[in-house]
Amino acid sequence: MPLVIPQNTSWQDTAALVQKHRDETISAVAPAIPEVPSELPLNVISIPSQLLSHSEITITQTLPEDLLAALATGQLTSTNVTNAFLRRAGLAQKLVNCVTELLPDRALERARYLDEYFTRHGEPIGPLHGLPISVKEHVGMKDLDLNAGFVSWVGRTGPANAYILDLLWNAGAVFYVRTTQPQTLMHLEAASNVHGVTVNPYNRALTSGGSSGGEGALMGMRGSCLGIGTDIGGSIRSPAANNGVYGLRPTSYRLPLVGCAATMLGQEHIVAVIGPLSTSVGGIKVFMKTIIDQKPWMGDPSLLPFPWRDTARDGGSLLKKDKTSGRRGLKIGVLADDGVVRPHPPILRALKTLVGRSKGQEAIEIVEFPPYKHDLAWTIISSLYFADNGSEEKEAIESSGEPWRPLSRFIITDNRNVKEMDVREVWRMTGRREVYRAEYLAHWNKVGIVPKTDGEATETWPANVEDEQVDVLLCPVGPGAAPPLDNARYWGYTAQWNVLDYPALVFPTGLHVEPELDKREDEYQARNADDQFNYNRYEPERYRDTPISLQLVGRRYEDEKVMEAFELIKEISGLPF
Amino acid sequence: MPLVIPQNTSWQDTAALVQKHRDETISAVAPAIPEVPSELPLNVISIPSQLLSHSEITITQTLPEDLLAALATGQLTSTNVTNAFLRRAGLAQKLVNCVTELLPDRALERARYLDEYFTRHGEPIGPLHGLPISVKEHVGMKDLDLNAGFVSWVGRTGPANAYILDLLWNAGAVFYVRTTQPQTLMHLEAASNVHGVTVNPYNRALTSGGSSGGEGALMGMRGSCLGIGTDIGGSIRSPAANNGVYGLRPTSYRLPLVGCAATMLGQEHIVAVIGPLSTSVGGIKVFMKTIIDQKPWMGDPSLLPFPWRDTARDGGSLLKKDKTSGRRGLKIGVLADDGVVRPHPPILRALKTLVGRSKGQEAIEIVEFPPYKHDLAWTIISSLYFADNGSEEKEAIESSGEPWRPLSRFIITDNRNVKEMDVREVWRMTGRREVYRAEYLAHWNKVGIVPKTDGEATETWPANVEDEQVDVLLCPVGPGAAPPLDNARYWGYTAQWNVLDYPALVFPTGLHVEPELDKREDEYQARNADDQFNYNRYEPERYRDTPISLQLVGRRYEDEKVMEAFELIKEISGLPF
Repeated sequence: MPLVIPQNTSWQDTAALVQKHRDETISAVAPAIPEVPSELPLNVISIPSQLLSHSEITITQTLPEDLLAALATGQLTSTNVTNAFLRRAGLAQKLVNCVTELLPDRALERARYLDEYFTRHGEPIGPLHGLPISVKEHVGMKDLDLNAGFVSWVGRTGPANAYILDLLWNAGAVFYVRTTQPQTLMHLEAASNVHGVTVNPYNRALTSGGSSGGEGALMGMRGSCLGIGTDIGGSIRSPAANNGVYGLRPTSYRLPLVGCAATMLGQEHIVAVIGPLSTSVGGIKVFMKTIIDQKPWMGDPSLLPFPWRDTARDGGSLLKKDKTSGRRGLKIGVLADDGVVRPHPPILRALKTLVGRSKGQEAIEIVEFPPYKHDLAWTIISSLYFADNGSEEKEAIESSGEPWRPLSRFIITDNRNVKEMDVREVWRMTGRREVYRAEYLAHWNKVGIVPKTDGEATETWPANVEDEQVDVLLCPVGPGAAPPLDNARYWGYTAQWNVLDYPALVFPTGLHVEPELDKREDEYQARNADDQFNYNRYEPERYRDTPISLQLVGRRYEDEKVMEAFELIKEISGLPF
Repeated sequence: MPLVIPQNTSWQDTAALVQKHRDETISAVAPAIPEVPSELPLNVISIPSQLLSHSEITITQTLPEDLLAALATGQLTSTNVTNAFLRRAGLAQKLVNCVTELLPDRALERARYLDEYFTRHGEPIGPLHGLPISVKEHVGMKDLDLNAGFVSWVGRTGPANAYILDLLWNAGAVFYVRTTQPQTLMHLEAASNVHGVTVNPYNRALTSGGSSGGEGALMGMRGSCLGIGTDIGGSIRSPAANNGVYGLRPTSYRLPLVGCAATMLGQEHIVAVIGPLSTSVGGIKVFMKTIIDQKPWMGDPSLLPFPWRDTARDGGSLLKKDKTSGRRGLKIGVLADDGVVRPHPPILRALKTLVGRSKGQEAIEIVEFPPYKHDLAWTIISSLYFADNGSEEKEAIESSGEPWRPLSRFIITDNRNVKEMDVREVWRMTGRREVYRAEYLAHWNKVGIVPKTDGEATETWPANVEDEQVDVLLCPVGPGAAPPLDNARYWGYTAQWNVLDYPALVFPTGLHVEPELDKREDEYQARNADDQFNYNRYEPERYRDTPISLQLVGRRYEDEKVMEAFELIKEISGLPF
């Protein structure tokens, strides 16, 4: 049922109606979702385990690939799995405010249908048979509200399901929950006047990240094991990192965005992508493969008709092969600091730990990867985001009278790169983006290459130094762990890969901020105002318990290689620690 | 040596200096290029055979794949081949005005180097060893003029070779001639105030086509067997068609454009592509494969890192396989008329002939392909070309005082879709483009599919009707054969595939306009002003002798399939007729 908002309703009353609707969907879950203590501790991560049944806890803490195996063999029913996730998601809402609505009726109807299908046919309907999948609100669902975080958009509905939902549905998915996002979708947090502020389950004074912050927080709470986010500057990766789960920003035009609501549709200067968050790397892979195996380019002409290279199935490793041993190998470039804003001590500790555990292993070579003009990348991307001077966002915010959220102001009205550009200025800035991409590629191509000194250049066609080049970059996801609310201001560590359109996987290291280990560097001299701002935020106690995540970045369209590289790193280093 | 133009030189004197330079490069060829009769007939196609040596004629009329085989085995030297093409290109210039300059010194130096390489090593340097390749002027060459058809740009030079030239060079190519293009690069003809008007070798009252019109005319004259053009609305295909040679508009982002000079750099709403023209389909293939085999995405980050699927080498056919016989098969959609401007009788005769010869053959199924809103496609593309109201073209034309060419006026100042758009209007029009692309894809997916009536829908994952879908479209390249000068006003038959970004191969049918066969339809009632204009142009005698070409179009990124489909059609129908 679509939300009906009477005309001339104030923004406050509109938000109250939306939240009332949300609460009603939560009340509709049976058995009723337990009440939570009125005084919550900062860290609420373990509360669900105290309030749910043993079976619910087991199911919701199982990795998606294991749930799929159990569902595909009839060991679990979709009804049981779905209800467990509905219950845990409802509980997560009460603890961290990450849900826009639950969908118990349609989810359980779908689950029953799939269970009957399995009983009748003795086999699953598809590779996602019976698995509950969470969905960021602005990914449209037929007849359901589609407000993208703007009060003025409440009451709009999706004319059809977003195409990606149809593809997941074909494969057997169950949609059971929709999740929060910020006003404008352009924060690395998830605060809107529609649904309020989503907080971090490890520390409620910190942000869940964003813009797919509802997904991140819900998954951190294990109220979902696989979900859908979108990313134009870090919006999948920041919430994955802040909540200690996996998130992939795929290269552009591999997964279909069509059917998502947002401002700036038709804007192609910096392309948004849609992609998965999951409690496991296996969840990320099954998501990518299931969609791409269905040839989504047959329905969405913006997509590239190239298969998902499944290295497990196809047998062909995308990694280097050692010439003598024949074993897979990997050259990792480590970019610890982007030269603009220095990461906080816990991030550098996690990087050092991972490098230490990977170094010296036969299969892995590690080199330092110097940053290349990351400040320029930010100038380019933050100019191109809002080439219309943010006029669409201004309209969408101001037409309801809702106030600007601080981070909307930060990225639009307080951003000195935002102005009304004419078409020629946009073309020129796009040209600068192209030049920067070419320079960065040339930089990547050179890192770690030892110049040949053994006589004259040989004439061979074509010249090939790929064997010596860096395969993937290992780097921070942000300049610190989850920041305090309204403080996620530095996008550089994620937006960098949006400027370049490189695929980037975020993964938890298993480490958490430990004030005892991660001391403040008192002597530090900040390089610039952004660096100073970030440095000033770091008081170790404030970040206690927060997960520390890292990012693995590949060349454009080498999404599959990033996944395979991560698995090798995981195997060798023993991740998560 | 770059051209040096003194300050304050009038546009007429500038053009005269450029043409004087061109003539000097032609005079530098030895033996001297023969004079041509001062009174030329309309059809000059056979004049070179009367004026060149037997060996020169043989070499220049050999297909590129056969030249490559002879060069790779030492049966021909690059010096001999290069000089033959220099001579024939110089002669072509005197007959149809298609050359901006010859490069005899650097070409012969390169040829000698390659010949010595072959002598020393006993093998070719690469897959294009010793082959002369012609290059459209705006594809930059280090230190040579780079004016893109604007008088005001004369004196600009390429800071480096365009990247595509480096890749061809690596593979053994020889660059020996640069070819003409129109003012603005945005005509389907090749008339500029820098180099004058390029005419059609089959009929000098008609156009060579454009914007790669110098390439087309030169190749029609057999002054080149393989060359480089660019295409944003038909600029490779119109000259290929008008001169009876092959031309491929590849899907975007497969070949590198970087290093080409043009207005509107940074414009991504409608993407230009670079691609080959050739006297053979083998030339097209070796061009594509040679570049893509070198992984050009390692140097140009805009390119997609996907290999050229060489169906001959890799063995894997991209066509359908008949379930019983196992033979390759093809479903062709025939789009004879786009519903906007009806093609002239010769075009429809050629289509009918080809369909007649292909029909009823086991391997080929032919269905009618109805057009889908091709008029809307033109509104979209002609709005997005000049979203800055043509301000860059206006500046480039008017700053020298050169007059506007009629077709520059036609496409910019007289084009009612051209206006100054703001960023939001560009986004909206880009959105319309996306919707149109989706609708056209849905249309393609349905053509020729017989709805299932055998009971209820089956639940299988994923649904697959590809076996019944159309593989390629067969259609005209334009609404007639080469039009009279300054009359190439209807772009719909080529620009359609730029809007959609589909790969399109133009091929000669071997047929020519025969007034005795191709009579005017006197009863025809025009549908609209464009149709009336085109109908009025058709007086059969005016088009006598002109080659009739057709176009084969594939789905986005199915460039290789288009090539394979063409080869099957050729084999079965006996093309060229």
